[in-house]
Amino acid sequence: MTATLLDETHDPSARSWVESANAADTEFPLQNLPFGVFSRRGSNEPGCIGVAIGTSVLDLPACHAAGLFAGACVAEGGACRDVSLNALMALGPTHWRALRRRLSELLRAGHPDEGRHHAMVGPHLVPMAEVEMRVPAQVGDYTDFYASLDHATNVGRMMRPDNPLLPNYKWVPIGYHGRASSLVISGTPVCRPRGQMRPEGAETPIVGPSRRLDYEVEVGAFVGPGNRLGHPIPLADADRHVFGLCLVNDWSARDVQAWEYQPLGPFLAKNFATSVSPWVVTIDALAPFRVPPVARPEGDPAPLAYLDGEDHQAWGATDIQVEVHLSTARMRAAGTEAARLSRARFRDMYWTIPQLIAHHTMGGCNLRPGDLLASGTVSGPEPSMRGCLLELSWRGQHPVDLPGGERRAFLEDGDEVVLRAWCEREGATRIGFGECRGRVVAEP
Amino acid sequence: MTATLLDETHDPSARSWVESANAADTEFPLQNLPFGVFSRRGSNEPGCIGVAIGTSVLDLPACHAAGLFAGACVAEGGACRDVSLNALMALGPTHWRALRRRLSELLRAGHPDEGRHHAMVGPHLVPMAEVEMRVPAQVGDYTDFYASLDHATNVGRMMRPDNPLLPNYKWVPIGYHGRASSLVISGTPVCRPRGQMRPEGAETPIVGPSRRLDYEVEVGAFVGPGNRLGHPIPLADADRHVFGLCLVNDWSARDVQAWEYQPLGPFLAKNFATSVSPWVVTIDALAPFRVPPVARPEGDPAPLAYLDGEDHQAWGATDIQVEVHLSTARMRAAGTEAARLSRARFRDMYWTIPQLIAHHTMGGCNLRPGDLLASGTVSGPEPSMRGCLLELSWRGQHPVDLPGGERRAFLEDGDEVVLRAWCEREGATRIGFGECRGRVVAEP
Repeated sequence: MTATLLDETHDPSARSWVESANAADTEFPLQNLPFGVFSRRGSNEPGCIGVAIGTSVLDLPACHAAGLFAGACVAEGGACRDVSLNALMALGPTHWRALRRRLSELLRAGHPDEGRHHAMVGPHLVPMAEVEMRVPAQVGDYTDFYASLDHATNVGRMMRPDNPLLPNYKWVPIGYHGRASSLVISGTPVCRPRGQMRPEGAETPIVGPSRRLDYEVEVGAFVGPGNRLGHPIPLADADRHVFGLCLVNDWSARDVQAWEYQPLGPFLAKNFATSVSPWVVTIDALAPFRVPPVARPEGDPAPLAYLDGEDHQAWGATDIQVEVHLSTARMRAAGTEAARLSRARFRDMYWTIPQLIAHHTMGGCNLRPGDLLASGTVSGPEPSMRGCLLELSWRGQHPVDLPGGERRAFLEDGDEVVLRAWCEREGATRIGFGECRGRVVAEP
Repeated sequence: MTATLLDETHDPSARSWVESANAADTEFPLQNLPFGVFSRRGSNEPGCIGVAIGTSVLDLPACHAAGLFAGACVAEGGACRDVSLNALMALGPTHWRALRRRLSELLRAGHPDEGRHHAMVGPHLVPMAEVEMRVPAQVGDYTDFYASLDHATNVGRMMRPDNPLLPNYKWVPIGYHGRASSLVISGTPVCRPRGQMRPEGAETPIVGPSRRLDYEVEVGAFVGPGNRLGHPIPLADADRHVFGLCLVNDWSARDVQAWEYQPLGPFLAKNFATSVSPWVVTIDALAPFRVPPVARPEGDPAPLAYLDGEDHQAWGATDIQVEVHLSTARMRAAGTEAARLSRARFRDMYWTIPQLIAHHTMGGCNLRPGDLLASGTVSGPEPSMRGCLLELSWRGQHPVDLPGGERRAFLEDGDEVVLRAWCEREGATRIGFGECRGRVVAEP
């Protein structure tokens, strides 16, 4: 696939006349072109669709109004003029690619029409510093998975030292439905939730603010066209139903979770807030970074037929580096940089995004454009790769040391968590996801 | 509350000039006035809001256009002209009551303006036989609870005979997020889902159509105005956030559920379809049937403070009779009436709807207008009150006998499940919920 999907939009030698897109450390070079929804800072406008390029945001409805997309199929759909990405997501890969090619052409340095492009497109670039971002889609349903074997094993080991992994894990991509209403955009403060919990050793529960507030670093996938009820998406078609990826912080109140989760799963422990990053890196932009799924450990069963296929074996996974950074109020006051808590590779996940799509729909469940699937905590085999404090501090037993002498078993008020991710490899241009940021504030 | 909330719309002596609304066996007398969304059968119109009266549906946007709601607050909001009930639900109790009073007045026999009302309203009555109904609201999030102690105890006993009830049950109103995309209106065929399951005694799972397909009879609550993220709804305010109730069939694939549900709860076992009844019986129509919550068994803990209150103790529950009927293809071919499988009382639930609302939001989770909360299976203490086949057949061990000699451990293709419910008591007019109907069809 990577061979067939790579085109001139991935050409690593291409540069943009938007100078900031050529900086060595940019997350948004010409080869990325992620989509988001923005409004001018301080305005009360409904959001409009933008594309990140260097340190600017390209105003898509303005480009559309200027006739710059004439001929690209998307122009007819009005999808660019929507207040969310849902209509664009619904159009499907042919339209997405036509629009990507056109955007790449309009922004490319050295194009025969560069002068005209620059003159016509330039006025529709808005500095990132002047915009605020919105949740990029109206999410009808949000699903959260549990696709990291390392995460599931670590968490299982804390609960059941002799039998860490449940017998279904290597057969079923475990997932559950999350809360769509409390999805918030990166930067939104996260209120420490109250909840019911039972202190260790106590007979009866208490009610109060969670004392074991945690983050989870995850990769999110926004659904494209989706499927009708009763019509599963086969694994081989799954890529056509993924518009792109973002970062997700699945905030979790561990004390609430431990008390409430049996027998129907997490509920209030997770539904008080879930943060998403504003830029959706498209499946097309990620084409150069598709890789075979990680080899299953010796002795593990092969995936069942509906979760397996030749193409999937060749490029079912995506190689993304995922990091978590933390700063405390004291660190910020002292001018100390945020500390990196973990770095993991998304390709180490036991289940890939196409497998999550195929599994989600196998019984006929319908996915709608803009639905969000999150991967579950991205952890890896090494301790430095653990994607939440529950794992890093081993349920609070070994608090994490921070610069300046502070320690954290779980999050304190004022702590700010920043998730970052990027893709890089020899022969391709490095692309980034931007950040997913959230600061914990005391309950009101 | 019942005292303060009862008004002329509940007057049991009032009759309607719509003759069918005065029939002894009607579910939709003048005192009910449930809301739904309908379209003319066979038309491709988007739905419009209607109110059931006898065997007719009153076309609300037509009444609005005719100026019949002038003065009722709702008229200004355009809520009556929407294609779903969401906007009306968002308005809150003052508006709901004003509209109910006006509808009651317009439809009442013996009103001083009856002649004029009849002449102006009559043309906007559509026979029920000529309409098809839609899911009444765009459901942003759907939550399913587990509020029947009897159901939880029965299911627990099958899994853990010595320890049927988990230690959190009597403290936490257990719930989980369900799938909103696959909510379907009563009458929609339900496809038997494929799934992954592990046959008893087998080492490895298989994939195939579920062999243990089940229904669950539940009561659903549609959310009214709802709350902002981070702002819990106190128990005492919960009623103001419930627009009304309906019936829900939470179809469940028990074999899939048994294999997948640990540790994050049901997923594919439930998300292939959930049926809802078309008529939303308003919280105001239910006022005469509010009762104290059922007494907790001796020795049970009192509800925690956020789930308790004087008003709640006085009228927190609602007395609804809930029934399940089943017909098989063979029964229908033989002209045999559907068999009643269970009858239970909603007031027997361990947790009330106000408690579900207060718990759902206690950590700050936001509810939005049109969100749906379902109660969980409505079962009671007697075997005849068990609200799903899993309980009735005790996990398939004791199949249920049907007229004509058939037996059912779980649902077969062609089986049709019909849920019904009604409220009655001395001194009030009996009101019904209509039905929630669904027939199982083979996977395509």
